[in-house]
Amino acid sequence: MDIKQYIEENESRFLDELFSLIRIPSISALPQHKEDMLACAERWRQLLLEAGADEAMTMPSEGNPLVYAEKRVGPDAPTVLIYGHYDVMPAEPLELWKSRPFEPEIRDGRIWARGADDDKGQSMIQAKAFEYVVREGLLRHNVKFILEGEEEIGSPSLNAFLHEHKELLKADVILVSDTSMLGADLPSLTTGLRGLAYWEIEVTGPNRDLHSGHFGGAVANPANVLCSLIAQLTDENGRIAVPRFYDDVEEAPAAEREMIARIPFDEKKYMEAIGVKALKGETGYSTLERNSCRPSFDVCGIWGGYTGEGSKTILPSKAYAKVSCRLVPHQNHEKISALFADYIRSIAPDCVTVKVTPMHGGEGYVCPIDLPAYRAAEKGFAQAFGKRPLAVRRGGSIPIISDFERILGIKTVLMGFGLESNAIHSPNESFPLDIFRKGIEAAASFHIEFDKDI
Amino acid sequence: MDIKQYIEENESRFLDELFSLIRIPSISALPQHKEDMLACAERWRQLLLEAGADEAMTMPSEGNPLVYAEKRVGPDAPTVLIYGHYDVMPAEPLELWKSRPFEPEIRDGRIWARGADDDKGQSMIQAKAFEYVVREGLLRHNVKFILEGEEEIGSPSLNAFLHEHKELLKADVILVSDTSMLGADLPSLTTGLRGLAYWEIEVTGPNRDLHSGHFGGAVANPANVLCSLIAQLTDENGRIAVPRFYDDVEEAPAAEREMIARIPFDEKKYMEAIGVKALKGETGYSTLERNSCRPSFDVCGIWGGYTGEGSKTILPSKAYAKVSCRLVPHQNHEKISALFADYIRSIAPDCVTVKVTPMHGGEGYVCPIDLPAYRAAEKGFAQAFGKRPLAVRRGGSIPIISDFERILGIKTVLMGFGLESNAIHSPNESFPLDIFRKGIEAAASFHIEFDKDI
Repeated sequence: MDIKQYIEENESRFLDELFSLIRIPSISALPQHKEDMLACAERWRQLLLEAGADEAMTMPSEGNPLVYAEKRVGPDAPTVLIYGHYDVMPAEPLELWKSRPFEPEIRDGRIWARGADDDKGQSMIQAKAFEYVVREGLLRHNVKFILEGEEEIGSPSLNAFLHEHKELLKADVILVSDTSMLGADLPSLTTGLRGLAYWEIEVTGPNRDLHSGHFGGAVANPANVLCSLIAQLTDENGRIAVPRFYDDVEEAPAAEREMIARIPFDEKKYMEAIGVKALKGETGYSTLERNSCRPSFDVCGIWGGYTGEGSKTILPSKAYAKVSCRLVPHQNHEKISALFADYIRSIAPDCVTVKVTPMHGGEGYVCPIDLPAYRAAEKGFAQAFGKRPLAVRRGGSIPIISDFERILGIKTVLMGFGLESNAIHSPNESFPLDIFRKGIEAAASFHIEFDKDI
Repeated sequence: MDIKQYIEENESRFLDELFSLIRIPSISALPQHKEDMLACAERWRQLLLEAGADEAMTMPSEGNPLVYAEKRVGPDAPTVLIYGHYDVMPAEPLELWKSRPFEPEIRDGRIWARGADDDKGQSMIQAKAFEYVVREGLLRHNVKFILEGEEEIGSPSLNAFLHEHKELLKADVILVSDTSMLGADLPSLTTGLRGLAYWEIEVTGPNRDLHSGHFGGAVANPANVLCSLIAQLTDENGRIAVPRFYDDVEEAPAAEREMIARIPFDEKKYMEAIGVKALKGETGYSTLERNSCRPSFDVCGIWGGYTGEGSKTILPSKAYAKVSCRLVPHQNHEKISALFADYIRSIAPDCVTVKVTPMHGGEGYVCPIDLPAYRAAEKGFAQAFGKRPLAVRRGGSIPIISDFERILGIKTVLMGFGLESNAIHSPNESFPLDIFRKGIEAAASFHIEFDKDI
């Protein structure tokens, strides 16, 4: 049976299976979802077995368990290791969702739910492509699956797991579907990722909230100080002001900047889609360069003092911010983390106590486009989407991709099917049904094309 | 019966009455407490009648009702109008309270509860002094009470009420117990107050929270922008950077600065009490000047983006801050409000939308120390505390004090019994029982001394 027909005949089952995963709110950031993490891992184990794995198991880690499955065709056959993650981002703010985040709905040709894209939907594409090549007897290489449950919190247990299970995870290439394409009609493969460093800053002033009339002007306000610290982290050109931050940042080669300039990109539509009147970032770089080849600094969350209704005249005791830098390849996140903390300490006034806690981090990554698996992925996309995919660097981070290379010595091909409009990490995450189908076709074709090279 | 004996014999009833007020969580900032406002006003009405008023009533306003009561001794007698407020600040953060905020407890010689000082405790001092002079037949002047239920949210309905009831509120002087003394052994009367202007700043960037990897660097982050705006509101000398902000600020006269310098003030103890290692504020002024005679700028609350556990890599759609300036006499809060909003607009980048909403405001105030009522208050304090009280300017704001002068044409004597350690507006607000007793004695003596001048 050809892949298109297979998808058509089995689609309603595929969706039922995906929905059974989505209904488990596997939010790794929130400790109250511990049981859901176990349930989601177990559900994946069952699904991978049913899809055609010889064996599948959940494996303990220091944190949430991982799901491992494999299908071996022979000891001398090459091996493709497929990585995905079963955890999702928190769904807050809940009031902005049009349908419930963990009760998937199909509307307007899309699946609406937290995880519809990132990464339950995308991982399911790989699982169903695998099912097809197994059931149709087309598979000539070994396939391993590894699904983790801590990707959205920075994969704190994965490194130890990789070290411990190097032998089990041995493979020729890793395949990951957790990135986006330029557009539904603009298939692309991600050849570069940014790294990440994430911190929480805590500024403590007085030992309790003070009356702003009785104390205002006499005592440093930790919220004012926090704002001042954050303002000093970037300069007037949108560059990060931490000394030596740019030491390891390489300028993108002229050829790559030219290729980026050729990517069809409608800045007006981009602004309309996110509802802003102007874009802003580092001087001297285009929008697409700024969100892919250049580092960035963002406040992800900030809080302190009275945030209820009305007005409360206090000088708060504490103020906090969660902040992060996206890094580019060659920037070491631990080095950056140290430079960042040093800088904050150097500019912090002595009238408050400032604590900088590194939360997580990871390196950037570059994938060579002459890798056999990359070429197979390119052909898979071309078959499913009708055109050759562009090779592009993306701004997001999958810190573990560089860990795979460092610890396992394996390169990764980033075969992502996401779209910007899918709103991952935001309310009303969704995934288009036609991309779900094309994704399965592209992933199935990858396996077939990969075998031709053996 | 002398006042000391009267207090001793009636104290347990006084406390029962005060506790009956405290148990009603009359939080004006939170709309769900609407019913509590009505209940608290009604309870005050009963208590003032029982204390000796000829009549007492609750009077409607555009917002919460006011409580009015009066005792007339004769048409030609002078009139003292006693103002207080029955609303309280929100009690959050609740987890920091050692006992429940609306279930008063007596421990270590203090009453612990929200409102124990501000302003249920202090208003009760006036009510019980009034009861004493009425029951003992000592009163030679008319007494009026007016208690409002919106002081902690900036008295939005009071101005209209004052205009409407000018005749009813006619008086020779207004007496207010809602300020603090320098210390339990350092009785003082407040002769100056700062004004207040309070705003909410809302910065809107993209129309939804964005993935910080996909968009970071390309799109302005409203939380970063908010921090930058706030950082630009003060300069390196701790002065407010809004152009023309200091136009109407008068330097305190040399004599007043000398008097401030003579106030016993242990900066080390002050820092220890609030738990800071250093103080900070406008260069060139002492701590006591900075928190009384000089304007200040404070972030009272700030929030935006992800503030839960763990790390979420977003570029938030919105960020907010509640900010306020304390003003000094002669600064007009509406003029300051306009200058402030103009300045924010002038420095706001066009990549975000910035909204500045004035929340409330009021002018500063100065009380002449040769006012007969001021002298009577001075004598009352001297009798109760055993020493002549110091005349000091304070940093807090009671914006309505200047409204009383502007609308009713009446000066106010600020006869406050609070202490800094009472932690008003904070968790674990308290009021010492001995100050409660001395306050009643001082307030009763005020009435007697005031009559000697007639």
